[in-house]
Amino acid sequence: MSILVKNVSLNGKITDIGIEENRITKIASGIEGQFETVIDGSGHAALPPFYNTHCHAAMTLLRGIADDMELHEWLTEHIWPAEGKLTPEDIYWGSRLACAEMIRSGTVFFNDMYFEPFETIRAVEESGIRAAIGMIVLNADEEANRKNRKTNAELMERRHEFSSRIQIAWAPHAIYTVPEKNLRETGESARECGLPLHIHLAETDREVQDCLAAHGCTPTEYLARIGCLSSRTLAAHAIYLNERDMEILRENGVNLAYNPCSNYKLSSGRFHFRRLLDQGIRVTIGTDGCASNNSLSMFDEMKMGAIGAKLEFGGPTGCSAEEIYRAATRSGAEAFGIDGGLIEEGRLADMILVNLDSPMMVADHNLISNLVYAADSSCVSTVICDGKVLMRDRQIPGLEEIIENARRCARHLR
Amino acid sequence: MSILVKNVSLNGKITDIGIEENRITKIASGIEGQFETVIDGSGHAALPPFYNTHCHAAMTLLRGIADDMELHEWLTEHIWPAEGKLTPEDIYWGSRLACAEMIRSGTVFFNDMYFEPFETIRAVEESGIRAAIGMIVLNADEEANRKNRKTNAELMERRHEFSSRIQIAWAPHAIYTVPEKNLRETGESARECGLPLHIHLAETDREVQDCLAAHGCTPTEYLARIGCLSSRTLAAHAIYLNERDMEILRENGVNLAYNPCSNYKLSSGRFHFRRLLDQGIRVTIGTDGCASNNSLSMFDEMKMGAIGAKLEFGGPTGCSAEEIYRAATRSGAEAFGIDGGLIEEGRLADMILVNLDSPMMVADHNLISNLVYAADSSCVSTVICDGKVLMRDRQIPGLEEIIENARRCARHLR
Repeated sequence: MSILVKNVSLNGKITDIGIEENRITKIASGIEGQFETVIDGSGHAALPPFYNTHCHAAMTLLRGIADDMELHEWLTEHIWPAEGKLTPEDIYWGSRLACAEMIRSGTVFFNDMYFEPFETIRAVEESGIRAAIGMIVLNADEEANRKNRKTNAELMERRHEFSSRIQIAWAPHAIYTVPEKNLRETGESARECGLPLHIHLAETDREVQDCLAAHGCTPTEYLARIGCLSSRTLAAHAIYLNERDMEILRENGVNLAYNPCSNYKLSSGRFHFRRLLDQGIRVTIGTDGCASNNSLSMFDEMKMGAIGAKLEFGGPTGCSAEEIYRAATRSGAEAFGIDGGLIEEGRLADMILVNLDSPMMVADHNLISNLVYAADSSCVSTVICDGKVLMRDRQIPGLEEIIENARRCARHLR
Repeated sequence: MSILVKNVSLNGKITDIGIEENRITKIASGIEGQFETVIDGSGHAALPPFYNTHCHAAMTLLRGIADDMELHEWLTEHIWPAEGKLTPEDIYWGSRLACAEMIRSGTVFFNDMYFEPFETIRAVEESGIRAAIGMIVLNADEEANRKNRKTNAELMERRHEFSSRIQIAWAPHAIYTVPEKNLRETGESARECGLPLHIHLAETDREVQDCLAAHGCTPTEYLARIGCLSSRTLAAHAIYLNERDMEILRENGVNLAYNPCSNYKLSSGRFHFRRLLDQGIRVTIGTDGCASNNSLSMFDEMKMGAIGAKLEFGGPTGCSAEEIYRAATRSGAEAFGIDGGLIEEGRLADMILVNLDSPMMVADHNLISNLVYAADSSCVSTVICDGKVLMRDRQIPGLEEIIENARRCARHLR
């Protein structure tokens, strides 16, 4: 596969971009040669795509099933009962739908934590995007635990069979749902095998209070103590942190996922964006699942994220467009060791073409400000991931079948 | 002009919708007869469009010119100097761009306050949407005051010459920029002539403190005292209100514009959505101008508005999807006496067709939740305003020329 993007705007200059296999091989004017696909990039900007670092992809099927209620009622009366009905087929089509929505809004990677990971892997392989697939650890009933252990063993064993777009991660749900013994095991295995460790951290004040009562320390201190924090750790939410927690996260090089829409929609609390960034901690962005957000568009996250950070800081200088944009793109790629997130020769060929003739992108005083505060998914024309065109002129092959099946699968959840 | 929309989903049932002149004349299955335009509505939902009740449309040209800084620096060093360079031609193309962006995101009306209103009127007439055009009152230098008075007199005199889509409103900027004598005059004229009165109210705490010092009462009490509050008043922002202010607003039937993205992006403060709604006050939604938001999409406003209301309330029950959706649609139409905002026989033919096969609209558990929390402008296929098709299959005639000219006009503002 080779692609030539002609006459596209890159960092304010018009250029061509040559892609061979899955890498950007040349950036120059007037590139010549044989390319299998030639894309006219005129009127478009070439930009890094989004990397979504905290997601439960198949929850697209639960989108809108329940909103605007207290957390306990929402979870126990609506979300968990609906999740109990999910079949492997549902997970497959829900994940296909998620991939399609992400591609349409310029995202090429998601870090997932959900049941039936082999179904999600199948959806990711067929959709052509990237994912980190969680080996979920959760203290449920014995049958579910046995099933998870079996699935995780199989994922570990077969992890080199998947395409290079897929990585496997440990995904212990949270400190309050996973026994200490299992948390320690995931931490050890993550270190030994060089795998990411994906966990919900300090999402609610109750988690902190319960941890203080049970372990005499905060959730962050607890995870550090039992060996779950490293530069391969991705901690989602990370809202209720004190100064010492932030130091521990920095010292261990932990990556954080800021989940602005979910945090605010569920009234979980406010992420300390400014302070965490100032500490030198890597902040990335995740959409969370569609039951709590309810969108997978990183455009929504960037705008809500920047505005939420200003609110938490107490003034408009709490977050710049450039900072939130970096969190949504390059920082997400870095957190998962993906050599993308920048349009440069030698990098992985992950790229979006943004339509500069969309009304939302005019005036053109500041491209990044326009992306963060004005644009939405309608501005993304073309998406390239790992050297393959996944969407061209807003068309995704096979979308009709995905929509039809996802809608059918969702109906039996009500 | 007559339009037949066939096989569209309306309130969960498939039907046809017949439009003659500028009214919805029939809603039934299998409508027959001669229609100039027939639209296949299959796979789409017919819904009321959005009514944007607080805008400075031509500020699209300032989109992204300055962000993420303190209010005073932002205004005095960036916004005001750029506004000083605006020519009538700029206002025209900036307003055309605003209309295009609004149509693309499903909005058919905006309530405007800006300079050179005849240029905005020309843009609105040509774009085919609705607007309330402000007769701006602002205590500037004597030459500017004279020019405003002359323009306003001409607007009053010629107000019956414009199409029925355009209404004229008094637009005294704010209590701190307009002398009491002029405020009283606009209040009187609004009452006598039955015109809306559009004003910024209690946007900052400083406005309240200064008013208390100068007049011994809050801005709301002050406006009530001098005759500026009525059911034709649209007060924008209305953030810093006490209990008595809310009572006064309710007693006078004042309409409020909630401006969530602008309020939070500028760190102005939090709108008391829940309490105002519970008082029975009509709450509508406005985008504000593109310098402070920076988008004119009411999808952004609905999501930020619902989430902002939860935040202000302190829990997820602070606002439902249905409540914010009503504010963005029907309540906005009602505030300006526009007989739209509902798809019913006899109503004005204002309507959007939303693509139910967009990934963002699946699962289909709750249409309104999907619109508020998941959708963006890409889900809007077709827009009808006053019985005319303004966008069909996302195409707006003449968009290229608008983009080109708006971009050209914006360049000399830097």
